[in-house]
This record gives sequence, C-alpha cells and structure tokens, in this order.
Amino acid sequence: MSRPTLRAARALALPVALLFLLPAATRDEPPLRGFTTAGAKVQREWEGKFRAIPEPARMREAMRRLTLRPHHLGSAYGRDNAEWLRAQFESYGWQATIERFDVLFPTPVTRVLEMVAPTRFTARIDEQVLKEDPTTNQKSEQLPTYNAYSADGDVTAPLVYVNYGVPADYELLERNGVSVRGAIVIARYGGSWRGIKPKVAYEHGAVGALIYSDPQDDGFGQGDVYPAGPFRPRDGVQRGSVMDMPTYPGDPLTPDIGAVPGAKRLDRQDAVTIMKIPVMPISYADAQPLLAALTGPVAPASWRGGLPITYRFGPGAAKVHLKLTFDWSLKPLYNVIAKLPGSARPDEWVIRGNHHDGWVNGAEDPISGLVAELEEARALGELYRQGWRPKRTLVYAAWDGEEPALLGSTEWVEQHQDELRQKAVFYLNTDGNGRGFFGVAGSHSLERFANEVARDITDPETHGPVIARSRAQRVVGGDKEARTRGDLRIDALGSGSDFTPFLQHIGVPTLNIGFGGEDDGGIYHSIYDSFAWYTHWSDTSFVFGRALAQAAGTMVMRVAGADVLPEEFGNLSETARGYVTELKALREKTAADIAELNRQVADGVFGLVNDPRRPLAAPRAQAPAPVLNFAPLENASIALDSAAAQFETAYGALPASNASAAMLAEVNALIRQSDQVLLMPDGLPRRPWYRHSLYAPGFYTGYGVKTMPGVREAIEQKDWKLADAEIQRIAAALLRESELVAKAAAALQRAVNSNAIP
Amino acid sequence: MSRPTLRAARALALPVALLFLLPAATRDEPPLRGFTTAGAKVQREWEGKFRAIPEPARMREAMRRLTLRPHHLGSAYGRDNAEWLRAQFESYGWQATIERFDVLFPTPVTRVLEMVAPTRFTARIDEQVLKEDPTTNQKSEQLPTYNAYSADGDVTAPLVYVNYGVPADYELLERNGVSVRGAIVIARYGGSWRGIKPKVAYEHGAVGALIYSDPQDDGFGQGDVYPAGPFRPRDGVQRGSVMDMPTYPGDPLTPDIGAVPGAKRLDRQDAVTIMKIPVMPISYADAQPLLAALTGPVAPASWRGGLPITYRFGPGAAKVHLKLTFDWSLKPLYNVIAKLPGSARPDEWVIRGNHHDGWVNGAEDPISGLVAELEEARALGELYRQGWRPKRTLVYAAWDGEEPALLGSTEWVEQHQDELRQKAVFYLNTDGNGRGFFGVAGSHSLERFANEVARDITDPETHGPVIARSRAQRVVGGDKEARTRGDLRIDALGSGSDFTPFLQHIGVPTLNIGFGGEDDGGIYHSIYDSFAWYTHWSDTSFVFGRALAQAAGTMVMRVAGADVLPEEFGNLSETARGYVTELKALREKTAADIAELNRQVADGVFGLVNDPRRPLAAPRAQAPAPVLNFAPLENASIALDSAAAQFETAYGALPASNASAAMLAEVNALIRQSDQVLLMPDGLPRRPWYRHSLYAPGFYTGYGVKTMPGVREAIEQKDWKLADAEIQRIAAALLRESELVAKAAAALQRAVNSNAIP
Repeated sequence: MSRPTLRAARALALPVALLFLLPAATRDEPPLRGFTTAGAKVQREWEGKFRAIPEPARMREAMRRLTLRPHHLGSAYGRDNAEWLRAQFESYGWQATIERFDVLFPTPVTRVLEMVAPTRFTARIDEQVLKEDPTTNQKSEQLPTYNAYSADGDVTAPLVYVNYGVPADYELLERNGVSVRGAIVIARYGGSWRGIKPKVAYEHGAVGALIYSDPQDDGFGQGDVYPAGPFRPRDGVQRGSVMDMPTYPGDPLTPDIGAVPGAKRLDRQDAVTIMKIPVMPISYADAQPLLAALTGPVAPASWRGGLPITYRFGPGAAKVHLKLTFDWSLKPLYNVIAKLPGSARPDEWVIRGNHHDGWVNGAEDPISGLVAELEEARALGELYRQGWRPKRTLVYAAWDGEEPALLGSTEWVEQHQDELRQKAVFYLNTDGNGRGFFGVAGSHSLERFANEVARDITDPETHGPVIARSRAQRVVGGDKEARTRGDLRIDALGSGSDFTPFLQHIGVPTLNIGFGGEDDGGIYHSIYDSFAWYTHWSDTSFVFGRALAQAAGTMVMRVAGADVLPEEFGNLSETARGYVTELKALREKTAADIAELNRQVADGVFGLVNDPRRPLAAPRAQAPAPVLNFAPLENASIALDSAAAQFETAYGALPASNASAAMLAEVNALIRQSDQVLLMPDGLPRRPWYRHSLYAPGFYTGYGVKTMPGVREAIEQKDWKLADAEIQRIAAALLRESELVAKAAAALQRAVNSNAIP
Repeated sequence: MSRPTLRAARALALPVALLFLLPAATRDEPPLRGFTTAGAKVQREWEGKFRAIPEPARMREAMRRLTLRPHHLGSAYGRDNAEWLRAQFESYGWQATIERFDVLFPTPVTRVLEMVAPTRFTARIDEQVLKEDPTTNQKSEQLPTYNAYSADGDVTAPLVYVNYGVPADYELLERNGVSVRGAIVIARYGGSWRGIKPKVAYEHGAVGALIYSDPQDDGFGQGDVYPAGPFRPRDGVQRGSVMDMPTYPGDPLTPDIGAVPGAKRLDRQDAVTIMKIPVMPISYADAQPLLAALTGPVAPASWRGGLPITYRFGPGAAKVHLKLTFDWSLKPLYNVIAKLPGSARPDEWVIRGNHHDGWVNGAEDPISGLVAELEEARALGELYRQGWRPKRTLVYAAWDGEEPALLGSTEWVEQHQDELRQKAVFYLNTDGNGRGFFGVAGSHSLERFANEVARDITDPETHGPVIARSRAQRVVGGDKEARTRGDLRIDALGSGSDFTPFLQHIGVPTLNIGFGGEDDGGIYHSIYDSFAWYTHWSDTSFVFGRALAQAAGTMVMRVAGADVLPEEFGNLSETARGYVTELKALREKTAADIAELNRQVADGVFGLVNDPRRPLAAPRAQAPAPVLNFAPLENASIALDSAAAQFETAYGALPASNASAAMLAEVNALIRQSDQVLLMPDGLPRRPWYRHSLYAPGFYTGYGVKTMPGVREAIEQKDWKLADAEIQRIAAALLRESELVAKAAAALQRAVNSNAIP
C-alpha cells in the first residue's frame, strides 16, 4: 500500500569517540539484548552465517517472476503468485499453506468523466502503453484506474478545487464564500491519505470527488518523467483505496471477525467504511482542462501546483459529469502462511509479513519488500539444514489484498485473534523497499532492540553500519539530540501497511522496517510500477534488498532465539513522557490561538482588513479552551519510569546468569503482553476497532500517526470533555503497563537469582 | 523605480477602549506634535480645509495626460511632461523652474539573444501590442526591453540556472559541482533587487546574465494575465537598472557632485557602479525554451517556478549567444522644482518629491504617486489664495531619471548639498500608489509624527482612520505588539526610490509613504503599466490617490507650520536598542551555526549521507566566530534613552507655553540635524557615499534595508574584525545623537521657561 515514513535505527550505547577507549573484547562483542553471554556467542555465529546467504541476483529474478503480469487481489496471476510463493517456501524446507478468505472488493464496471460546461471534454482515464516498458501493454489484465470502495454514482455538478481536501482547506473555502454543497470536488494527492479527501468532502456536502496527481508533487516538477526518468508521466494515475480505514481496515462486511465461509456479514449499506460518494483518481493530463475551466477567487500560493494555469477555487461555469459503477461481488483472497517450528518454545510465534498483491504489476510496491522476505526464508531454511533451530516458531506470511484495505493481514488477525493473543511475541513488517537510509518504526519497547540490530547491518553504499548513516542523516537535518542520545529514536506507527491489525487491534509488539530516501519516483499505484521501472530507477542492483533481508532476518532470528524477549521499557517510558509534554504544549497553543482569534473577532479587525474586491468572511469566535488535568498521565508516566528502572536492574544480571528456562518463560509470558496491556478494551472514540492507547492513524490524516490519539485528536477537535476523559483512559493503560513491567522485573529478578545450578 | 515595502502608521496613544473614557474635548482635539495649543487649533482648521480639496477626477485626468506617450529619461514626452508640470505648478501659484543635469544613461543599440545548441531558438525580446490597450503600440517611442547600465558584450557560453542569483544560491551550486565560470547565468526576478544578480554572477566568474520573470511570481501563477487580468502576459518583460546602486546611486560619472556642465566626470571605465558583464531581462515565453534545454542535477523545490518544465541547474548542451551594445552618450535630465516661500522661516525647507519619468508609459510607477503630489500642490495653492501661509518654505519636486539610478534626485542633492544641509528639515517621498493599507517608512524620530497624521486620514474603503486599518493588518498578521504599543512602528528605509540621497547621503529627516497591499499585478516596468491597466486593475476611482494627497499634504503642512519640529526621540532610541538586540542574536546564531557546521564536517556526516547517484560536496569548515563587544552600542543606547526622556520632559510644557520664536528657532536648528549627526563622515565600509549609521540598502540585497548596516553586514559576511570596528563607529553616532538631543532638550526647556511674555 505505501511506505510509511521510514527513519531511524540503533545507536551505539556510548558516543562513538568513547567506544575506542573500551577494551577490544567489549568492542567486538557488544551485549546482545535478551541473551546470556553464552547464548549471545552462539547466536552471533548463526547470524553471521545467515547474513552471508541472501543474493541480489535471486531477488532480482524473483521480482521478475512475481511482476510478470498484474497481480491484484482476485486476479489470475495473484493466485498464481500465491501458489508459487507457497512452493518456494516449501522448497526452502518450510511448512506452507494458502489460507483463503472471501472479501468484498469492488472492481470497476463503468467509468465516465466528462466536462459538460463551459466546453466539452472527455477525460482519457487511461494510462498510456510505453514501448520501453513491456508490461505496460497488459490491458486485459490491468485493473483500470479507480479508487476502491468509492460509491456507485452518476452525478453532474459544478466543480470546486479543494487543495488537499483536508478540514483546514474547507475553512478557507468558507471564508471565501465557496461551498462544496452539491458540487464535485477536485483535490490533489498529498497532505493526507487519499481516503480522507472524499470523506471530508462528503462531510461538507459534496456529491462526488476527483483526486489528481499534481506534476509538482511527483511529475515533471520533480524530474524527468517515465520512461526518461522515474517520475509520473502525464497520463499516469495513482490508484488506491478510499475505504475509511481510520475507522477500521479489512473487509467492510466483517469487522473484527475473519471473512471465512459462513461468517456473519453486514449488509453492504451498513458497512460504514465504504465511501458515500463516487470518487475517482485522475492524471494531470485529465485534470488540467478541468482546473483551467474553474473561475472564482484565485487560490493562495500554498494551494498552487505545477500546472501552467491559474489555480482557482471555483465554482463557476465548469460542470462535470461523473459516472461510476462497480462489481460488488466477493472476491477470493489468498494469504500464504509458512512456518518453521520452534524447538524450545513452539507456542511463541515470531511473525514476519509483506504483502504480495499489487495494484497492477507492483514491482516497488510490494515486491521489492517481498523478495527480501523470500530470500530470508531461503537463508533460514539453509541454516535449518545446517542444524540451526529457532527456539520459537517462525511464521512467514505473504499477505494478499493489502492494497484495497489491509485485507489479508486483517482477516487473518481477526480470524486467529485468540490464538495470536496467546502466542504472538513479535510482528515484523516490510513493504516496498528502496535505496538510502534504514528506517524503523513501531513499539517503543523495541527501540533498543532495533538500535542493536541496526548496528550489525552494513550499508551497501557507505560500507559502514546502517545506524551511522541514519544518525548522520538526522544530524544533518538539524536533530542534535541524535548525536548524544544513546539510542536513535524510532518512529511511531500510523497505518498504511499490514502492521496495523497486529499492533493496533490485538497489541502484538511490532516493528516496520525498510530502506529509502535516495530515490523518488512517480509510479506509485500505476502501471509504471514495473520490473523495468524498478531495475532502472531504484535499487537496481538489489543491494538494499539484500540489506533489508539481512536486517529483517537478523531481527527474526534474534527474537526467535532470545532467552528473554528483547523489550526494554526505559525508552518506552521516556517516549510516553515526551508525548505528554507535546500534548500539554498543544493544549497551550490551542488555547492561546482561540483566545487570540476571539479577541480579533471581538475587535473587528477582520472587517478592517477586508478587501471589498475580494471579500473574506471573518472567522467565527470559538468557545475558550478549559485547562485540562494532565496529572493522571504524568503520574502514570512516573510509575512507568520506576518500573522500567526496576526491570533494567534485574536485567543487568541476565548476561552472566544461568536462569532456568522455566523461570524465564514466566518473564517472557509477561513481556509479550507489553503492547496488549496498552490496548483499551473499548478502543478509540468513534472507532473501537483501534485499541492501542499510544498509536493510531489519524482520523483526519490517514496514514499519519497520532500518538496518544484519544487525547491528541480530542484537543485538535476542541472536544475538551473528551480530552479529559481520554487522559484518564490512557493513564490507566500506562498504569497497567507499569504494573506489568514491575511484575516482569520481579520475575526476572527471581530468575537471575536462581542461577545456582549451572 | 519601485515601491519599497510599505507598512505602518500612527497608533492612538491610548488603547482604543480607553479612549472613550476620556472627556469629549480631549477626544476631539488630541495634541498636535510641535504646536502650542493655540497654534494647533489654527493648524487643524487649515488642514481640514486642505483635505477637502483634492479631487479624484483631476488625478485621473492628470494621469491620462502624463501617460499618453512613453516618458523615460531623455524622451521627447518626458521633457514635454516636465514643461507641463512646471506650468501646472505655476498655475497653482508656485514659483517653478526646470533644473537640467546631463547624465550618463545608456540606451540599447543592439540586442540579440539566441540559443545556438542543442537546438536553435531566437528570443523574441519584444512585448506584444494589445488592441485592448491603446498605448502599447507606441513602438517608436518605447525603450526596448533591457537592463540599464549592463555592459556592452558579445558572448556565447553555456547556460546555468542560478535561482535568484544571491550568494546562498551559489553555495548550493558549488555543493552540486556546478560552476558559472565562463557561463551565462539565467536568474529569476525576486529574492533580491535585480542589480544584485549580475553583480554576484560576475563575482563568480560568469560572462553574461539573463533575468526572467517567472509566471509563478507575477504571471499566470498569480491570476489572469493582462488584459484579462492584472498579471504579466507571456511576453511581458521587467525593464530596470542593474547599476550597482548599493555602492552609490546617481550618475556613475559624478559621484558626490552634480552632473552639471563643466563637472569633473570620471572616465566611463573608472565608474565602478556600471555592470561588468552584459545583462538582459527576458519574458517567461523567451525563458522557457532556454530553461527546458538545461541538463544537470534537478534544482530543489525552493528553486522551482511556475513553468511546466523540470527546473535544473545546468549546464549541459544548452549554449546561448548574447550580444548587447548601447549608446553611452550623456542625456539631458529635467527636474521640476516648485517653491512656495515660507512666511516666518523661509530658510527652513520642507521638501516633497515623486519622480515623473517612467520606464515606458509608467502609469502606476510613478504617475499614480505624482498625481497626488500635483493635487496637493493645487490644494496648497488654493489655501494660499485663501490666506494660509506656511511658516517654512515648501519645495515640491518632480524628479526625472529615477528609474535608471535615482538620477534626478541624487544629482540635485549632490549639487545643492551644502544648502540642503543648512535648510532641509524634512523630505517626504512617494512613488507608485495603490489600493489598501497606509504604509510609512523612514526616520524613527518621525515615528510619532507619522502616527499622528495617520490618525487624521480617512481610509476610502473602511471610512475609518487609516491607522486603524494598518493596526488591524498587523494584528491579523500575528503582530501582537501592534495592539498594545502606543505607536505603530514604521519601517526602516533601504533604497528603491528618491529618498535615498536625502536620508542616506546628507541626513535629511525623511519619510516615504503610500497605499498598497490589495492589488497585485505583473506590469511593473513594462509597456503594460499604462493608463488602461491602472484604471482597470488598481485604484480605479483614485480614492486612494486622494487619500495619499491628504496624507502627504497634511504632513507637509504640519512640518511647515510647527512651532517646534515634530521629532520625538524615545521611539528612535527604542528602535536602536531593538537593532542592538537583533545584532546580538545574529552573532549568537551565526556563531552557533558555524560551530555546528564545523562539528558536522569534522564528524564526516556529509560523507555518510551522500547519495552516490547525486553526489554533493561537503561544505567547508569555517573560522569560529569570536565574541563581539556590544557594550559601546548598549551604553550609547542608554545615553540616548536618557536624552530622549529629557527632551520629552521639556516638550511637555510646550503646548501651554508661549515660547518666543527666536528661542524655538534655536531648538529647531538642533532638531533638524538629528539625522545628520547619525551620519558617519567616512560612510559605510566599501561604499563611502552611504553615510547613515542606521539605514542602508543591503550590499547583497539591494532595495532591502540593512539596519545598523556596518555591523549587520560585517556579521553576515563573517568579518568579525570589521564588526567590532563598526560597533564603535555606530556607537559614536548614537552618542552624537544623544548629545544633540540633550542640547535640544536644554534649549527647549529654556524656551518654555521663558514664556512670561504672552
């Protein structure tokens, strides 16, 4: 679906300069989180062998195979890929199955877009075949350009340009006296996840929506267009889902349950995540005549893109006819699930996933990540043949139907949720991969772990550890803390890939990793995201694919082999404290902004600055912001600090200890709940499916994360009563976490104290 | 030439709400700075009569007359306009003369611009005639599109895009491995005054320069283009001077002396302000094929404009041939100087000016300001006939040759500098005028005065005082101080119009005023700046022209009639203290930036973040910034505070006093030197013509002001030794000011104490 912003990695526990003062032995063998000293030595040897195995040439060949034909959910080649993937896993020595679900996935039947006034223009809504790219001509198998989960509709209405189509854009339209009620909006991609745009348009009374790719953002404004360069050609279109995934992802008809035969399905009209109005994505070639026909006030500089026109709000004479109908039948979905059984703790699962469906040929998204996963599986199979055994069970998944709605991962998690709550100790996700910097996001209890791994992975371009590059990137970007903090911070996860059901619905400790930042492009979700494109313009030699396989496989092996799961809670606690500080500042700023606005309204300054030729309505006064009581969050944060410190004290004795597996199992049974106890049983306001108290996609941003979302979004929406209530709920979650960590600390202390018998 | 940023105006001395608590009498008759209570009453009566006289219809007719044909320096119609203006002044009862100078003003003989590789393209370099605008077809009288004071040249060279062409742009080019040595640069207008672009290009080894108007800045990106709207059409070109006016303005051959017959003129090759390379302005229609032909790295987002191309640095295959030759003969210049003699203090001159030359038909620039000045003169003549007599002599000037180099005003000031130092008490400048907010910039000793006047002028759109609109504009823009500070701040003056020689060369207390901010356009310095354009797209009913005449005339009358010149020094002192605070912060920031850069260079982070496909050279380490001793400036500032307070104490007794004219004359003789003593006899580093210690145009910004320029530019250039020396020189100037103000305070105290005889 998308690569969420990827950043981060592992920091040396000591500043670089100090490292060289340590004895050589210490330098060569830094401690391995979760292992005794003896265990670490064996682990490092196997990891070293593992990292030597992945081969770029095999990844290239696998990408060629998997991208040969369009492989979206429900396609013939998607099923073919699933079968092939299963066979590959089996050939590597894994037990592999295909797990089918039947999900609501609309595909287009009718697509018409035309301007009917002031002049007639029929949109092409078709991507051009390129002779330079052999897979672009597979018209009969390609999904046409469309937005999945748009409503059926046949509307003719004036057109209004709404910029990114986020709530603030409508405030400006309103001040300019422009309403979208009864209109079709045209928004540009960017500024939010695409599904937010029609949702907000519908909230404001629009009857249809178009979303176009402005050339400033990923077309000629950025560089040469494909095939001369990597950017979006004039007819290129970004397909994509507009389901209301910030409410819940997965099959709209089966929230919280697996979409298996006999599952109790909602009626389609009761599925709240299906968009209420027709929505279609278009190219900039199709958008230009529509935008050029708008009249009305000139849009401000921040609304202007790269087309050679005057951007205006509209409406005016421009009238557009949009007709869309879809095939709303259920489609079969094929997840590939491969397992390598754990030797010592088979009922603790380390899960690793990447989706296999693409919108069309999907080379970058998702195959560039999937081929790394496949190569890890091959390498782990090879180790297995050499005698290595994971203590815990490995579950490697290739998800189907991620693009429409995280369908494969969500249905699987919903179907198996009871078992997963008992068994899952870690979920590791990847999606598209590219050249550049190693990025990590996820559960902050895994921040130290992620840092340790990032020290052991070699960057293909600098030939130093990937963590050094990530750190340098932040320092150059002005982040001075990155120079001094022991661990590089990892990002929080919003949504946009298959980690969401694991982390945010059932509370599995999760990381999402990938490389990126050096190559841009404009082929996302188009027919041009192909093997030809990827091997010309991205990680052409697959050395970053190898690095990704090395990083992901190392993470998997390390969690699978750890004596004690590698969670650390000091960084989690510090991060939570940071969020509280941000929220307090957000309240202060919001309160001050409201007070200032109200004073300006009362003083009548908007009337005084008004230009009679371009009148702007004054904003409305707002209710003043009350003071919030943040004490519960602050107290919970102090409790978590203290528990985290106790845990580290106990942990200090682990490397030299000989604690019994049984006693450590008790510790692990607690630790693996560290994200589960952060869930709130009733979920977030307005969207109970999302339960994590710390991380959620934004209700009005989509992919973008909102941390401590209950409080943050309540403040943003100025719902002060709700904010006060959510403070209590998140504080309760943090208190549960601190109790869990304190218990784990006590259990660990008992375990390391009991190491009399060697 | 240009409207410098216009802002500001007078604040009520009390917050609005409090005003209504005052007795009605106080509200109706606020004190008039510089007048006794009795004098103020008479003054207000005459001012009220004055403000009723100016008529929009007359201004419209005068604009029509003055813009009928092109009227640049040296043109037949420019001379005709001068004669007509003189006759107008005489018809109003003024003594008017034409004062001629003979100045170096190059006009184009040959202009060739063509691309010779990779394809051939010959630039049109001609503006299209519009049937909708009757004066655009006067081809035989129009100056063609060119940059005055470009060098002659005939060069063929690769082309490099340099963004705005300011020093920071060249740092980025260097990091990208792109040199302009031996190349022709193409820069876009904006980001600096145009003359900076070829100057910096020359410093970096370029052999020629093109400057184009990007459509994002004043073309279709902003709105409909002329004649459908006010913005620059595809062939529109911004003419303009590229003389190095930040070094000195005026005739390049006669720095510091009047360009009269027999004046000692430099050889042309010794005139340092003439550009060393050929430079030409072009339209975006001509620029597009050139920019589209560039190869090399893609320019970053901040360098991109509104053309539908990928902006690149170049060079590459694109090769350009530029050939320019000029007629370098002297041209005659005709200033119109009109006087109305002072009744009581004829040797104190209140000078008011606006230029009359345009680049072509020049309706907005400069005639929209000149017609206000003319209407003031008519109204003052009318008052004179009714019996009003200014105490001081009024000098109304219509300058010629402002566009090429502030020629008319500079030569006049240089020619009469000894007399002006003795007699000038105030210079009031206007230039183009438009709809919107009242703006004031100039000597901060006149800040309170400007605020008082702005309270008495009615805004044509809100029908309230213009100061209320200016204040509201700042409050809406986020300036909370504007709500609480007694006086609205006025801006400091850089350059760009005829105030420069008065304020910055000989130290006459100066203000520059105008209305603007509601209408934009893209006709600046083109054939489209016409009567048709102005009467369709700007102050179409001339009501802001009337408001400008009312404001300027009120200022002139008030200074001319004041018992004590209206300077106030508390605001000056506070402003100077603010500059010192800014400079200290600038040093801190610069020092911290250098330290951070050096640390990053030493740590090798630039190598780590480097993308091998798009390599960037690491920046070079810089010498650390020493600590500067700001104590002299801070001590001088304290001394000025104290003197300003003494002066206000003495001033408090003026309104009720009956001080003798003779004793007040002594006070006035001191006050009128308040900017003179702020001059530094040796002038600024590298440019002795500019002498003001507080205000100068930036050496690398042009129009944009640098306050306390000696210190500020030394810090910006990281010349720390110079910065320390300049602190001393500016501190000495502030000490001279504080001594002068203390003397004036003592004299005023004596004068108000001597009011025994009524």
